[in-house]
Amino acid sequence: MPSYKAPLRDIQFVINEVLDTENLYAGLKGYEEATPDLMNAIIEEGAKFAENVLSPLNQSGDEEGCVWSEEGVKTPEGFAEAYKQYVDNGWPSLSAEPEFGGQDMPNMLGIVINELAGTANWSWLMYPGLSHGCIKTLEAHGSPEQKAQYLPKLVAGNWTGTMCLTESHCGSDLGLLRTKAEPQADGSYAITGTKIFISAGEHDMSDNIVHIVIARMPDAPEGTKGISLFVVPKFNVNEDGSLGERNGVHCASIEKKMGIKASATCVMNFDGAKGYLIGEPNRGLNMMFTFMNTARIGTAIQGLAHAELSYQGSLEYARERLAMRSLTGPKNPDGPADPIIVHPDVRRMLLTQKAIAEGSRAMLYYLAQLGDIVDRGDEEAAKKADDLMAVLTPIAKAFVTEAGLEAANHGIQIYGGHGFIREWGMEQIARDARIATLYEGTTGIQALDLIGRKVLGSGGKLLMGFTEMMGEFVEANSDEAYAEFTGPLATYKDEWLTMSLEVGGKAMENPDEAGAASVDYLMYSGYVVLAYFWAQMAIVAQKKIAAGEGDTAFTKPSS
Amino acid sequence: MPSYKAPLRDIQFVINEVLDTENLYAGLKGYEEATPDLMNAIIEEGAKFAENVLSPLNQSGDEEGCVWSEEGVKTPEGFAEAYKQYVDNGWPSLSAEPEFGGQDMPNMLGIVINELAGTANWSWLMYPGLSHGCIKTLEAHGSPEQKAQYLPKLVAGNWTGTMCLTESHCGSDLGLLRTKAEPQADGSYAITGTKIFISAGEHDMSDNIVHIVIARMPDAPEGTKGISLFVVPKFNVNEDGSLGERNGVHCASIEKKMGIKASATCVMNFDGAKGYLIGEPNRGLNMMFTFMNTARIGTAIQGLAHAELSYQGSLEYARERLAMRSLTGPKNPDGPADPIIVHPDVRRMLLTQKAIAEGSRAMLYYLAQLGDIVDRGDEEAAKKADDLMAVLTPIAKAFVTEAGLEAANHGIQIYGGHGFIREWGMEQIARDARIATLYEGTTGIQALDLIGRKVLGSGGKLLMGFTEMMGEFVEANSDEAYAEFTGPLATYKDEWLTMSLEVGGKAMENPDEAGAASVDYLMYSGYVVLAYFWAQMAIVAQKKIAAGEGDTAFTKPSS
Repeated sequence: MPSYKAPLRDIQFVINEVLDTENLYAGLKGYEEATPDLMNAIIEEGAKFAENVLSPLNQSGDEEGCVWSEEGVKTPEGFAEAYKQYVDNGWPSLSAEPEFGGQDMPNMLGIVINELAGTANWSWLMYPGLSHGCIKTLEAHGSPEQKAQYLPKLVAGNWTGTMCLTESHCGSDLGLLRTKAEPQADGSYAITGTKIFISAGEHDMSDNIVHIVIARMPDAPEGTKGISLFVVPKFNVNEDGSLGERNGVHCASIEKKMGIKASATCVMNFDGAKGYLIGEPNRGLNMMFTFMNTARIGTAIQGLAHAELSYQGSLEYARERLAMRSLTGPKNPDGPADPIIVHPDVRRMLLTQKAIAEGSRAMLYYLAQLGDIVDRGDEEAAKKADDLMAVLTPIAKAFVTEAGLEAANHGIQIYGGHGFIREWGMEQIARDARIATLYEGTTGIQALDLIGRKVLGSGGKLLMGFTEMMGEFVEANSDEAYAEFTGPLATYKDEWLTMSLEVGGKAMENPDEAGAASVDYLMYSGYVVLAYFWAQMAIVAQKKIAAGEGDTAFTKPSS
Repeated sequence: MPSYKAPLRDIQFVINEVLDTENLYAGLKGYEEATPDLMNAIIEEGAKFAENVLSPLNQSGDEEGCVWSEEGVKTPEGFAEAYKQYVDNGWPSLSAEPEFGGQDMPNMLGIVINELAGTANWSWLMYPGLSHGCIKTLEAHGSPEQKAQYLPKLVAGNWTGTMCLTESHCGSDLGLLRTKAEPQADGSYAITGTKIFISAGEHDMSDNIVHIVIARMPDAPEGTKGISLFVVPKFNVNEDGSLGERNGVHCASIEKKMGIKASATCVMNFDGAKGYLIGEPNRGLNMMFTFMNTARIGTAIQGLAHAELSYQGSLEYARERLAMRSLTGPKNPDGPADPIIVHPDVRRMLLTQKAIAEGSRAMLYYLAQLGDIVDRGDEEAAKKADDLMAVLTPIAKAFVTEAGLEAANHGIQIYGGHGFIREWGMEQIARDARIATLYEGTTGIQALDLIGRKVLGSGGKLLMGFTEMMGEFVEANSDEAYAEFTGPLATYKDEWLTMSLEVGGKAMENPDEAGAASVDYLMYSGYVVLAYFWAQMAIVAQKKIAAGEGDTAFTKPSS
């Protein structure tokens, strides 16, 4: 298994040299203290935790998996202990609101920490990761009493959370859901039904598990307009905050999966479990939408994580493994053969992995910053950021996870036959990466969201918000020295708009035309967005080299 | 797990309607009896065996895997029994030479039977499959005594064979191998070394296992010119053909793999094992090359198999699973939602799987027929077929296995989250398919073979042998009705030649240019070859429809 080494220099390059992070957070209310120095220090601590605590559990977690019994789910050796350290060190509260004990750091910093933890061990990250959605839901829509009751423990990490949406017959199409919520005399609801694919639905890491559940009330309208949202704790919570009796929600079994085997994917039975309505009745799906962008960026991180991890593993192997001679003459004349990194096709695969990992990192950090602007920026800036997020999020989620899977596949291929053998760890990365294009909205769902709701739905306006930025960037870097980056970018920008118009025109005749083009359209969009971020990184590096500034060992292309 | 249904109509269409099989075999010496009727009857029997015996063991074999102990390797429940049936029914001898008990049927028929068996259960096919290389090696290069000693039992299937090439430090670059062969007083050799990745190296299916081993004699020239070939039986064979004492070759362990888990991938220790030289000293690699094309086509079948199996599974699910409404209005108005097959992106994935499976089938059967012409045709026909095989084999091996992996991946995607769950079987197909781009020469190795040895190495002649055929086909079908197929084909043919020239030109300046382009070049070539076979199939179908002939339920496009 490749042991993870956090790419701190790459991370800092994006945060401090490519993005204008310092000025951004200096101007966002409450984030003034999130200086580069402070954030770097936190990132370095996160890197140590990821490298030293989580990475060593990645392969053993896959081998061991989770074990279900009537009493609950046992996570792999070391997982619960790692989680305890994570809580003791205050990581869960990093970017939560201060009112309930959060440290109020930018969401971007949370994304960086999730990248570190998730690259080291994605399965493990699923446990604290799912709390995020639960916390955000309660922060945004919970009553003051619900917030006071659940948030301090969730923010501290003593309790974890889940999102219970999917049922066996419905995933993407939540309008079909059957779980019932019947009003009780005490104002609570009796929740009855079976949810599947509930990550972290049951485990041995925390004292309580707080489920956010969508269900249908009696006489609710059919379809998505009759979905309400409930909070259903594993243990009921007494008024004084102590744990009360066991609620009627149980894990019936866990799934045997292709990958992320150390993450418990639970079938959850709700047998008249006590649930409490969040917000208004029948508004559940709308409430879920409020943090869907953040959740999708969180999943996009998985593509980046697995691209990075497979790249690290492949690079090391390609430098060491000897086979054949370079076609341009021996590069390791004293050895029996050359290291395979000399072979152009191996380099092609390595560079593809690298392009995906580093380009995606810039894309996702930028998106995370947009999220912070939406939360804390002035009205105009927030609106602009929100519009950019709307169009970029489906691209990021689907493209980065598809590209991450491609990178992981190259990782296997670079190892040759050894890539297929579990011991080397490369096939685990591909298995783990495979879920990312499926959950949190499949690639097809993202693609329909992009072309339908976002691009055509806004009459092209949301897309133009981004392409105009691309145009400004091209213009601001009109120096001949950058033409190799800005020239193609200008072309792609125009091509992207033309293509959007064409798809839109055909879709007016037949809506299925948009569906048929959607995934190719999304992937194309992803490559253009990736190119935009790579152009930024390349030009920043070239400017630094030209000015004789900084760290040329990092900025100069290696041979 | 999708249960396999042999696509007999598709298979017969290729054999009897697209390819001119009847006339071909009527004119090949010894194959006169291989009439369409006889071959169809055999294929139907093979389909029953695949569907009823092998398919039910596919998922259980994956779950159970193989178990190693000091005594040997236990294959999953039912595997040995299925092999016994296979032997009892005479399948191993189908396309072997009659001298040693073979039924002397065309190799193409063997390929079809392997497709059936391999689609049902690729892991299982690995056991009899590996015998093939062993038999071919002995047929071509064994002494009369060796043939008499080993071939009857191997051909009957009572014994199985292996190919022992790879060592832990060398796979693609066999020149680095270290296994030693020391001459003994009795004319045998003492073989010492460790081989890895030996499929079917040890198992519980047959009385004896015959290893074909490459090793280096003392004072052999370095590199690939010092490789000799040996036959090393698990049990020594007495003069009367009975089994003698246990030879010094043992399975040290089996690999834990991503997929094909029911296939034992063995580390084989040779501790001074008794081996017998095959052919001349130091000519081992050349001898291996004599049947490399056949072996590679055999592996290409895996891409076809997994494309077909994932397509069958996806199609069934897409017709049953309900989610969302069609963008063009409900297609299942009485149900709660439409089946997902109505969604254009799902159809795109299904059609991609189908295009890969059916196009690859035509390509591979054609290639198998070329192999039969090489073996049995007159000199001119054999030379022409050999040239076509030379250029098409690396394309078939690499492209079809890469495309098969893509199809298997779509299979997961069509199932959404369920695709990631083992129970549904779709993820197993992707795991099993993953090995095919690695073994028997990685995609990169095939791509270098294609662009380097075949295309540029022949000064373009081998490629032009195929593109001329494409040109003739386009000309022979100049009717306007077929322009949608022949038009693009004519363009691609020219583009392919131009591109080859360009790559060649750049490679003269820098050989690494060929390496850098090689895999993209190969994949492009694969799509063009696939298009050629699809055009043939489409035009045959259209001609039949136009003439009011045959089975329009099959030939007409479905809506």
